[in-house]
Amino acid sequence: MKLSGRAAATLLLTPWLTCLHVIALKSQLFTRLGAVDHSKRNPISYETLYFNQKIDHFGFLEDGVFKQRYLVNDKHWHQKGGPILFYTGNEGDITWFCNNTGFMWEIAEELGAMLVFAEHRYYGESLPFGKESYSDSKHLNYLTSEQALADFAVLIQELKNSRAGAQLSPVIAVGGSYGGMLSAWMRMKYPNIVVGALAASAPIWQFPGMVPCGDFYKIVTQDFASSGFNCDVNIRRSWKAIDNVSSTGRGLQWLSDEFSLCTPLKKRNDAVGFKAWLQETWVNLAMVDYPYEASFLQPLPRWPIQVVCKYLGFNASVSDYQLLHGISQAAKVYYNYTGSASCLNTSQTATGSLGFLGWYYQACTEMVMPMCTDGVQDMFEPQEWNFQAFSDECHTLFGIRPRADWARTVYGGKDIAAHSNIIFSNGGLDPWSGGGVTHNITDSLVAIVIPDGAHHLDLRYNNDYDPPSVRAARALEVKYFKEWILQAKKAP
Amino acid sequence: MKLSGRAAATLLLTPWLTCLHVIALKSQLFTRLGAVDHSKRNPISYETLYFNQKIDHFGFLEDGVFKQRYLVNDKHWHQKGGPILFYTGNEGDITWFCNNTGFMWEIAEELGAMLVFAEHRYYGESLPFGKESYSDSKHLNYLTSEQALADFAVLIQELKNSRAGAQLSPVIAVGGSYGGMLSAWMRMKYPNIVVGALAASAPIWQFPGMVPCGDFYKIVTQDFASSGFNCDVNIRRSWKAIDNVSSTGRGLQWLSDEFSLCTPLKKRNDAVGFKAWLQETWVNLAMVDYPYEASFLQPLPRWPIQVVCKYLGFNASVSDYQLLHGISQAAKVYYNYTGSASCLNTSQTATGSLGFLGWYYQACTEMVMPMCTDGVQDMFEPQEWNFQAFSDECHTLFGIRPRADWARTVYGGKDIAAHSNIIFSNGGLDPWSGGGVTHNITDSLVAIVIPDGAHHLDLRYNNDYDPPSVRAARALEVKYFKEWILQAKKAP
Repeated sequence: MKLSGRAAATLLLTPWLTCLHVIALKSQLFTRLGAVDHSKRNPISYETLYFNQKIDHFGFLEDGVFKQRYLVNDKHWHQKGGPILFYTGNEGDITWFCNNTGFMWEIAEELGAMLVFAEHRYYGESLPFGKESYSDSKHLNYLTSEQALADFAVLIQELKNSRAGAQLSPVIAVGGSYGGMLSAWMRMKYPNIVVGALAASAPIWQFPGMVPCGDFYKIVTQDFASSGFNCDVNIRRSWKAIDNVSSTGRGLQWLSDEFSLCTPLKKRNDAVGFKAWLQETWVNLAMVDYPYEASFLQPLPRWPIQVVCKYLGFNASVSDYQLLHGISQAAKVYYNYTGSASCLNTSQTATGSLGFLGWYYQACTEMVMPMCTDGVQDMFEPQEWNFQAFSDECHTLFGIRPRADWARTVYGGKDIAAHSNIIFSNGGLDPWSGGGVTHNITDSLVAIVIPDGAHHLDLRYNNDYDPPSVRAARALEVKYFKEWILQAKKAP
Repeated sequence: MKLSGRAAATLLLTPWLTCLHVIALKSQLFTRLGAVDHSKRNPISYETLYFNQKIDHFGFLEDGVFKQRYLVNDKHWHQKGGPILFYTGNEGDITWFCNNTGFMWEIAEELGAMLVFAEHRYYGESLPFGKESYSDSKHLNYLTSEQALADFAVLIQELKNSRAGAQLSPVIAVGGSYGGMLSAWMRMKYPNIVVGALAASAPIWQFPGMVPCGDFYKIVTQDFASSGFNCDVNIRRSWKAIDNVSSTGRGLQWLSDEFSLCTPLKKRNDAVGFKAWLQETWVNLAMVDYPYEASFLQPLPRWPIQVVCKYLGFNASVSDYQLLHGISQAAKVYYNYTGSASCLNTSQTATGSLGFLGWYYQACTEMVMPMCTDGVQDMFEPQEWNFQAFSDECHTLFGIRPRADWARTVYGGKDIAAHSNIIFSNGGLDPWSGGGVTHNITDSLVAIVIPDGAHHLDLRYNNDYDPPSVRAARALEVKYFKEWILQAKKAP
């Protein structure tokens, strides 16, 4: 498959794809590191439960059910109407989101809340057709956000009906990233079921015609520009340097050695995938540029982009080889902070892991998110957004075509003022904030901007190194939660 | 197929089924009579257009399209942002709804509005799979209200994008009966696309657990009780009289002659269907008890129930034969007001016309509307609501099963206060008002009750015999429309 234009590259580079991929590959690692991270805290505990969920909520021919996994902790729940904080699971294993959403665990006692983490269909263990779920586009046909929202709605009704006391419990949807989009949409589409939503780092406007396609990569670039002298400039230079060096066999060998690649670059064209892999590395760093040592996508030092940029402070006179040595040191901050990696795997983004495929399918159907670069306002090689090429690639892969306008039609685009009780929180460092809601729309559709925050920092456990802005954000979020709960109790 | 309990009976008696059936059989007749009715008015005119609509909005495997019919009149439209009144078509031929929604035609000039009447998929000419659309449950799988709402949303976006000036036109959804439910739901689910909705005689609460299952038939009974001395009492007596008379061959012959039945009753058990047909007749009369001569479901005199009741004023001492003679005269008011019917057709409600089948399928999937009678608070034979029997019958017919709770989950049930800009109008004579919203929920979810109104009287052309309550209702509706339009123009 030829990669043509930004459309194709975007398919391979969508940072969420990477997350997923990493999630799938490293879930064991995360669990282990997570435990280390939280060693100061009480270990979290939950019941793991399964609900017989309809495979198809929007048609009656397919009447089968599947086991949807969900996790429940009711240790602090006030049984007489205490709220339910309901995490609207994203494109991955729900236990991982559960472990990485410390905010919910930390406020449960104060709110007297039950915590529920619901897995998104087609991810983790919640596979509508078991091992066949990804076998073809027929089995993938029920992988849509609308079906996922309906799953959540039906599951919440079931929880309320089956747990003594829960009938009167107001439910608040919480989610980050795609999960945040789902939590916002949950409130928009099912305000009868959730009284409000926290949509953390949710790029609900990253759809065609809503925000400039270049904003995402501009923000990535700003993160690097502000984290070290000439850092963005040298990354921008590196693409040409890679082209130069990879033009000879010796150069390819040097690059392979320098970057400790598990699979050496063999031919000139291999540089395309190599550059895509690096581009994704920088994007991921922008997403997880947290102010403390953390292991969200990878184990990383505090302010990882600053650490990366220490290797990229060259002035203009640097040679290609010197520059690329710096790039390789920088990449290893991301891929080998713990020192345990024996080599770096550039095919990582192309691996067909479950989560990866699932999000790929969603991007190829509803989640059409235009991305582009110009090499001027961003530090990447210029690539235009090409919907037709993207669509063709989707057709080749899945036999289906994306519908560019559907997300806007069904989820309102920028015309969402009729809704209420949604908090949109965004980190100023997070490239996804480019597609997020960063200004108040009404009194009850509010934006919280966390200037020093990366991807949904507010959902993470509190940390001594947290900037005041994220502490304030969390406090404000809790304040809104309490207001919504009060509103719900007053309602007739 | 054995008819057991109210569930089965309801399937056969759901008044909408009847409407549909009649619509399908008599559309020619209606058109002709409609023209006579409106002879004083300018004939209405519209463009008939077709839009390539996706067969499946909620999955990507089925990527085919069908021709959705819609009718447009822009004679009075102010091209620079004048509003669009968008009729959300019900379970039948859209031209019939267009001809029977005089209210929209009468206010178009005052509002500078474009009128659009959109046909509901699977009805009229808008058949997703042409003649195969009803061939089996596989082809019927895309007949849901969610798909219909998505059709409307996509069609409106297309209208706005393709008609010069329409981009800024606020759209108001208008509908009656099931079409009114759709207009309310349209505003709930797509507030980005319609700024408000008039839901006329829309029983959005006629779902399990929301209103008592007996309310519908109680209202029917009240209409007869208040339209003539002993009218309901004698209808209540008539069932036993029919049982008595139909117990002999001579009695059956007498009944067949007395009612001028096209197909004579042959055996005792035929009385079951005969009684169901009569029950439906009384229900239909309650729906169309208009204050002037009209031909909505049938050509009828003004206040037809009063005319019917003239034949049913017996006191207690009447014989079975005398009573049933009165019943037959009453039934003929409904079936033969014009004097042109040579015989009455009791199998009318069971005919497999297209619209009939479509609504039957919808009732068997999402539109689960419990109905029951007790023979005490209503004038019918007691029958309980039996969901299991209903479900079994649906399974026999279509190979699918209804989902009793889905409508409440997806459309909010009684928890709709988070929405806005919906007028729920209901006629006090209309049995469907039992499942309607008849009190204000918030400042912008308002109820208008028309005490002397039958089924969506407010949507009809004005008439000299209109009661003041419907005139006031229409004026208030227009006032809200103007407020919504103003709101939309002020919005950022």
